[in-house]
Amino acid sequence: MYNATMLTKLVVDLLGRCGVSHDDAAVTARALVAAEMRDIPSHGLLRLTDYIRMLRSGRINTGAMPEIVHQTASTVTLDGDNGLGPVVADKAIRHAIAKAGDCGTGWVAVRHSNHFGIAGHYAMQALPHNMIGVCMCNANPLVAPTFAAVGMMGTNPLAVAIPAGKEPPLVADFATAAIARGKVDLLHKKGLPIEEGFVQAPDGKPSTDPGILTRGGSILPLGSTRKFGSHKGYCMAAIIDIFSALLSGAAFGPFVPPSVAWLPVKKDLFGKGTGHFFGAMRIDAFLPADHFLSGMDRWIKTMREAQPANGAERVLIPGDPEREAEERNTRTGVSLQEKVKEQILNLCRELKVDCPL
Amino acid sequence: MYNATMLTKLVVDLLGRCGVSHDDAAVTARALVAAEMRDIPSHGLLRLTDYIRMLRSGRINTGAMPEIVHQTASTVTLDGDNGLGPVVADKAIRHAIAKAGDCGTGWVAVRHSNHFGIAGHYAMQALPHNMIGVCMCNANPLVAPTFAAVGMMGTNPLAVAIPAGKEPPLVADFATAAIARGKVDLLHKKGLPIEEGFVQAPDGKPSTDPGILTRGGSILPLGSTRKFGSHKGYCMAAIIDIFSALLSGAAFGPFVPPSVAWLPVKKDLFGKGTGHFFGAMRIDAFLPADHFLSGMDRWIKTMREAQPANGAERVLIPGDPEREAEERNTRTGVSLQEKVKEQILNLCRELKVDCPL
Repeated sequence: MYNATMLTKLVVDLLGRCGVSHDDAAVTARALVAAEMRDIPSHGLLRLTDYIRMLRSGRINTGAMPEIVHQTASTVTLDGDNGLGPVVADKAIRHAIAKAGDCGTGWVAVRHSNHFGIAGHYAMQALPHNMIGVCMCNANPLVAPTFAAVGMMGTNPLAVAIPAGKEPPLVADFATAAIARGKVDLLHKKGLPIEEGFVQAPDGKPSTDPGILTRGGSILPLGSTRKFGSHKGYCMAAIIDIFSALLSGAAFGPFVPPSVAWLPVKKDLFGKGTGHFFGAMRIDAFLPADHFLSGMDRWIKTMREAQPANGAERVLIPGDPEREAEERNTRTGVSLQEKVKEQILNLCRELKVDCPL
Repeated sequence: MYNATMLTKLVVDLLGRCGVSHDDAAVTARALVAAEMRDIPSHGLLRLTDYIRMLRSGRINTGAMPEIVHQTASTVTLDGDNGLGPVVADKAIRHAIAKAGDCGTGWVAVRHSNHFGIAGHYAMQALPHNMIGVCMCNANPLVAPTFAAVGMMGTNPLAVAIPAGKEPPLVADFATAAIARGKVDLLHKKGLPIEEGFVQAPDGKPSTDPGILTRGGSILPLGSTRKFGSHKGYCMAAIIDIFSALLSGAAFGPFVPPSVAWLPVKKDLFGKGTGHFFGAMRIDAFLPADHFLSGMDRWIKTMREAQPANGAERVLIPGDPEREAEERNTRTGVSLQEKVKEQILNLCRELKVDCPL
């Protein structure tokens, strides 16, 4: 079991050896370690090898200087200069928070960025300012629009963090697809079939083969099929793609560059890099903060105390499982998957960093 | 078949007889007729009887004067004075558009309002200003959070309207539940069962009885079950409820007043009336408008030209079916359900209005 401080230092050391500044390495390490602590390992240290491969091959800009290309009183358009996603995202949410401080709300569209880890990590940065935080991101294409045979959009996550008074904050953070790619891959590795309603074959027919994604198949939107509302999941993914890419000048839908080193660089015809969209809303721009915070406490208690469905233990508030994991992992330390440990040992060897794992 | 001008005049006449001003009646008529023209009759003239019953019994304030209770450069909190939903919503989206004109984006939280028809109607008002329009609304409880046995939230719709250049705009407008109540009721009337994954019994067990909603049952969130992502639909409904009610001071979740006259008034302990949340974002607050609009044209063409899934005719862009219905109904006129015609004949008789149906 490893503690967050040790893991953070390790990531900082490794990124430092690739020429990343101490500050940028620390911001990136915090994002990846936050995912581990919140039990979302698919967005944690598993990503470090790709980040480092892409930094070392020049696909990610080591010394990127993100730049404001346009702004109004409540908006910023940020060019990430092809930097590490967490570095760009951290700057972007700070701009959103500053704008919200000035005029009630702040909204930041970001182009030419890269994979940034968990969206919730950035949305949550608004919480100590008594603001609601919003974060969206597009991603390389894997999800088919309703009625389409092929993956045209990413799993495009949305995170919204909302402060409460005595209760812990509500943190919604979810992909707009029916299932995460990681879960499909896990079934594939185990040689198990996947139930209908999650993936489809390259001709758009339903499939129960989790290996289909490696052979031109695609993931279905949230809602699975038209009958069960996949057009709503498709709408969500579309809105997130457009806010992230079209408002910023990033690449959209099928043109979004891959976030892994083993996929080739695309000829990026329309737009620059991965896109994000951030928001911050000062709660006292709408109502006295106390009024809102006690209202949120009431909302949370009301939902938490709702009668559980037959067979269910309790009703959860968005963010409960991740917060509870973080509390537990802070006490006990967090474990790493064997595969990830091995990857990190290799990185340490390659970059001549003493490995504490 | 009836044309929009005739139906609008009819609704204006009927509301006028209830003491609603000509302007407010016209705004309300336009919202209800827009739903008919866009083939969403569940939010059209079907609602007029309830609007009128509630106006005449004093449950909706005939001469409401919506009032700004707080504002910043980019935000407004509006008290709807318990007016007709469309009248309040029309004022709110205008405030959002004005704020966006001034400082890039505008966001309006609304309390003490009522049922407002289709959310897309208000989001679309941002389009002629080259702005993205956003509209959300909470509603009386019918949808169970994931793992809950009972309906705690409304079908809480989200609409986002995004302008394009040569292509028609993208208009997403959807409820965050697995199915619309109207569709469940239709199966109930026909005596047909409903497939699993849409509704549940009062103990939270899956149900195939569409009549269960009249006996304490509830609708499942978008995603249907935890396995297929209902926690994401629950997150969406929660975010919309909180933006609409907690930021404005409206009633939330189980406390939202009914939008139909035959359900009794609630003791509204927490917050005032139905809540809405509106947004407008000037596209040139982020990028030169031409750049964005031609990007949207490309986005729309790219998705429209995606290979259709086996058995599907074509890939749709959000808003295509409603826009095509509107074009067709504008040419041919629109038909009304027999039940609705009968209701309107009764209203005409009661209010002494010449009925042109």
